[in-house]
Amino acid sequence: MAEQSCFQDFMPGDECFGCGANNHHGLRIKSYWQGENSLCEWQPQLHHQGWAGLTCGGIIATLVDCHCMATAMAYAIREEGRELGSEPFYRFATGLLEVRFIKPTPVNELLLLSARVTEVKGKRKYSLSCEVTVAGQVTATAEVVAFLVWRSDDDNDSAFFGA
Amino acid sequence: MAEQSCFQDFMPGDECFGCGANNHHGLRIKSYWQGENSLCEWQPQLHHQGWAGLTCGGIIATLVDCHCMATAMAYAIREEGRELGSEPFYRFATGLLEVRFIKPTPVNELLLLSARVTEVKGKRKYSLSCEVTVAGQVTATAEVVAFLVWRSDDDNDSAFFGA
Repeated sequence: MAEQSCFQDFMPGDECFGCGANNHHGLRIKSYWQGENSLCEWQPQLHHQGWAGLTCGGIIATLVDCHCMATAMAYAIREEGRELGSEPFYRFATGLLEVRFIKPTPVNELLLLSARVTEVKGKRKYSLSCEVTVAGQVTATAEVVAFLVWRSDDDNDSAFFGA
Repeated sequence: MAEQSCFQDFMPGDECFGCGANNHHGLRIKSYWQGENSLCEWQPQLHHQGWAGLTCGGIIATLVDCHCMATAMAYAIREEGRELGSEPFYRFATGLLEVRFIKPTPVNELLLLSARVTEVKGKRKYSLSCEVTVAGQVTATAEVVAFLVWRSDDDNDSAFFGA
């Protein structure tokens, strides 16, 4: 069941430009498990272009970032043998986002992002790899570090977000 | 004169989500010289947030990316003793975008980006550093590699963009 769910369905109140389902100016990505990898299919619109005909690098970075944060969250919960939507809820924030642009990414084709957790250090630091593929060609690769910055069962664990 | 110009004024036809002046869905950044550094001031709107009250990391990455590409272009032209707007025109594309998020970036305050070229290798590869500052606090730092991928006086130099 949980394997078929979109991770963002379990991020209620998420207004994020990249992944908030209710952000109507945003990219509203959806991420799913496919085995050990998480997938996100996303169709750019014309206003997401950089140079004519190509997807803006910043948009690609945004997709990678949000897809990896959702993947870290879903991974952490899966590793605990829990279903998405069960408490405690976790929120991740990006520590490092490193995107390598290998070839141009067309704006008029479907983008496929595939990510996986490559390492977990301690209770908070998750490393991930991500690939962006268009029509079978890898156009960008990324290494991302996610930090677990908030959990719903720990009142003392909200330092990153201040309030 | 050229030192007071906005770099994006000299990127005609730029429809980019991050820096295209005519992209009304985009971020429409403006970059200027201040000595050896290039500056960009930018006010996020509410739909640019990530977690509530904070600017989306992908938006920050987009600002950094586009500000650095424009900076590489302006630097290359300045190093040739030319004014922006003089031919040949140059276009840069991102090879590597590495953003380190140091602390949360508020969504309701003005963001200041400061970038500089740190190294040029050969005729095409420019390395840059960039800092994002809010109310005097550095919230993110970045290392970026830009490639000169097109120049208006070289018909053979458009391989990166395909057509």
